[in-house]
Amino acid sequence: MAPKDEKKFIKEITPKSEDYSQWYLDVVRKADLADYTTIKGCMVIKPYGFGLWENIRDALDKRIKETGHQNAYFPLFVPESLLQKEADHIAGFAPEVAWVTHAGNEKLEERLAIRPTSEAIICSIYSKWVQSYRDLPLLINQWANVVRWEKVTRLFLRTTEFLWQEGHTCHRTEEEAQEETLKMLRVYQEFAETELAMPIIPGLKTENEKFPGAVFTYTIEGLMGDGRALQAGTSHNLGQHFSKMFDIQFLDEDEQRKFVWQTSWGVSTRLVGGVIMTHGDENGLILPPRIAPIQVVIVPVFRGDTRDAVLEKARELEKALKPIARVKLDDRDNVTPGFKFNDWEMKGVPVRLEIGPKDIEKNQCVLARRDTREKLFVPLEELAATLPELLKTIQSDMLERARKFRDDNTRRVADYDEFKRVMENDRGFILAGWCGDSEVETKIKEETKATIRCIPLDDANNPIPAPEGTVCIYTGKPAKFEVYFARSY
Amino acid sequence: MAPKDEKKFIKEITPKSEDYSQWYLDVVRKADLADYTTIKGCMVIKPYGFGLWENIRDALDKRIKETGHQNAYFPLFVPESLLQKEADHIAGFAPEVAWVTHAGNEKLEERLAIRPTSEAIICSIYSKWVQSYRDLPLLINQWANVVRWEKVTRLFLRTTEFLWQEGHTCHRTEEEAQEETLKMLRVYQEFAETELAMPIIPGLKTENEKFPGAVFTYTIEGLMGDGRALQAGTSHNLGQHFSKMFDIQFLDEDEQRKFVWQTSWGVSTRLVGGVIMTHGDENGLILPPRIAPIQVVIVPVFRGDTRDAVLEKARELEKALKPIARVKLDDRDNVTPGFKFNDWEMKGVPVRLEIGPKDIEKNQCVLARRDTREKLFVPLEELAATLPELLKTIQSDMLERARKFRDDNTRRVADYDEFKRVMENDRGFILAGWCGDSEVETKIKEETKATIRCIPLDDANNPIPAPEGTVCIYTGKPAKFEVYFARSY
Repeated sequence: MAPKDEKKFIKEITPKSEDYSQWYLDVVRKADLADYTTIKGCMVIKPYGFGLWENIRDALDKRIKETGHQNAYFPLFVPESLLQKEADHIAGFAPEVAWVTHAGNEKLEERLAIRPTSEAIICSIYSKWVQSYRDLPLLINQWANVVRWEKVTRLFLRTTEFLWQEGHTCHRTEEEAQEETLKMLRVYQEFAETELAMPIIPGLKTENEKFPGAVFTYTIEGLMGDGRALQAGTSHNLGQHFSKMFDIQFLDEDEQRKFVWQTSWGVSTRLVGGVIMTHGDENGLILPPRIAPIQVVIVPVFRGDTRDAVLEKARELEKALKPIARVKLDDRDNVTPGFKFNDWEMKGVPVRLEIGPKDIEKNQCVLARRDTREKLFVPLEELAATLPELLKTIQSDMLERARKFRDDNTRRVADYDEFKRVMENDRGFILAGWCGDSEVETKIKEETKATIRCIPLDDANNPIPAPEGTVCIYTGKPAKFEVYFARSY
Repeated sequence: MAPKDEKKFIKEITPKSEDYSQWYLDVVRKADLADYTTIKGCMVIKPYGFGLWENIRDALDKRIKETGHQNAYFPLFVPESLLQKEADHIAGFAPEVAWVTHAGNEKLEERLAIRPTSEAIICSIYSKWVQSYRDLPLLINQWANVVRWEKVTRLFLRTTEFLWQEGHTCHRTEEEAQEETLKMLRVYQEFAETELAMPIIPGLKTENEKFPGAVFTYTIEGLMGDGRALQAGTSHNLGQHFSKMFDIQFLDEDEQRKFVWQTSWGVSTRLVGGVIMTHGDENGLILPPRIAPIQVVIVPVFRGDTRDAVLEKARELEKALKPIARVKLDDRDNVTPGFKFNDWEMKGVPVRLEIGPKDIEKNQCVLARRDTREKLFVPLEELAATLPELLKTIQSDMLERARKFRDDNTRRVADYDEFKRVMENDRGFILAGWCGDSEVETKIKEETKATIRCIPLDDANNPIPAPEGTVCIYTGKPAKFEVYFARSY
């Protein structure tokens, strides 16, 4: 019965090769992660998708706290006059802002923006909090919803409203702010690789691509299954751009009043999209065990006469495994085991535990890996030892597999013609020389839809200069950097 | 030096007896919990206040999940047409709604409300999710920000934007929905008493006081330090009011299409205000250990020549206690121990651990309770055993103290004249007969500012009928119920 079910089921997910966007949408919907609503570009995150986000959030929140930051909560609204204080900032965000103009039956004196990001409102508050050098560093993070009125939306990747964290810090010196910016970049990298099994390239954004109002923007860039890059998180050195506009000054030990140096950094529900596109396959989602809402699903396999005995054993296993893994017993009576297999595969549960009458006789069970579809027969008395190890192995195998895919799809090209061909056909990252001219970058974007994703960094976090003799892929002039190009989300 | 510091410090908090509202505001601000912003009625929750909220949230979230609910996330926006579907609902919320009318430079075709509560948007989505009896019960909760444009605001208690959780469930039968409504009421009660040490009266709201759109509203009511009641959480049986308006139907096992029965229930950041007013004293906040962001603060007491030795010992203690309590070492060099004592008292840290050169000699330390100001000398080798017990004792003593205050301030009165006198002078709860007439309730409110907080419940969760012979405090007619009256927040 299983094969027939399986076929029917899988048909519902469009093959990646046929239409990657549709594959993505199918997976998000069939795995019950999220859906659109009647409000343009707004999604509802369903319980299974939200469970995934909760695990992502908690794993990152722990790291944010361990590096000395505290959470706080700032208002949803940004008065128009505050948003306009930093010129680049408002220019960057104005086209996307949702405006509150009325409350009850009254028109407001000043329009209020729904925060598209919180620099303006937070800086206006920090200007009161920061008085002395003793108040520094100020290391605060916020988990919140933000709204950007996007023209084209895609579940998780670009939605009108999304959830994120935004860190906002103030420092005494320029050096400290730069150190913080890079520290959080590396926290993001370690987090993405360890928890999401998502290999990323950390790097510096170009002037064209940096955050409106930042001095420097650093990014972590992932490579998705269709060869397009995903900006998975950013960390900004804001310099004194905002502190001067919002008057955030402190009295230093030398009795001088000085403007603080600031950073901000964020990741969002977009990461869920990144996880889907880094790991998913034709059968649906594949979730890294560390963030999977369900790590092990127990599927009892029985007929009418063996039902009670098998279910009893399955319940026993569920109870035994609860302390060591996030486990769920699928005891539904109205669908077949085959249906269940496909259902949980589509939902990306890392391990399926099958138990039937013959297994019980042999005092064993079957563990099926979602990522490799490999099956293992495991004696029940070894389960408590085997399972945690298996989850660890799956996690590291997934990272390695994704890293290999990324490396296999990172290319150097002979010339601009090849560059264009690769971007049109294979996509992936192209590592190529760039003269450093923003206009050249713009032209490449217009002609190939590829942008500079980042300038790679050395171990000391400095942009790596182009090796001697490298030329710009577009102008043929000496290259300043070898940079990662890609089409992106 | 300490006494002088102390005096100066305490002066900054207005005595409760002089001006309770100002006392409250002083405590919130001096304890660094929250502050107003430039946006009318919007607060910023500062790290210490947010740490407190995080502990409250996590303790409740655990209970919500343990009772079978899952978290999800629904849009911030509610299209005007959806909000208007349930007539009582829109009538109740329209005066307080913030409206988004523009996005970028464009006027929206339909105005969007910022959710004042999410019944309308969630029901419109549930109508797609619920198809079969197998989809029921649908047990979902959301942690979110909501906006209500309030005329009079007060930090945590009533703010334009606040944080809360809202549960929204669908059931197959009326009985199941009623069972869920009461289950969550009792979860709230147990949570408030166990975690917040806040004794509460659970009960049924009158028709006048129920949620716009509900069939029944249940409430947990606390009594604050000034004798006013606080509605700390509510649980609503929505019947089929919303399912009929939003067309949430399912095909039942008998092949009939039926409307679901619904509930919703919520608590908010208002609970933080409840904790402050249940436990605070003239020296500031007193936090129940279970939710205190810092449970133990270590204050080293030294002079110049003993500094290094004492600090070293203090660091050792911090390290040793970290696994058993949320501990913080105050190693500031620029303020005196006396200043630190007052600072942490104001912030309500349950236990202060003092250690000085003489303590080190005797291999002991001093534990000072915030709630009773009692001091205990504890041998260092007993600390790991004593401290957790002490925190438990403080937690239960706080609940008992609050319960005694509540009971001492719950009165029966001889007649309506005494009722008025008590409400004017002592306040507190008055337990009095009521004939059941809504107009009588309104008149009492107009004349005394007291409302019926709730009709108390028996162990089977039924409203307790008035004992034989009880008369209505206002009309003298036979009373239907004996109800709790109070002025409230």
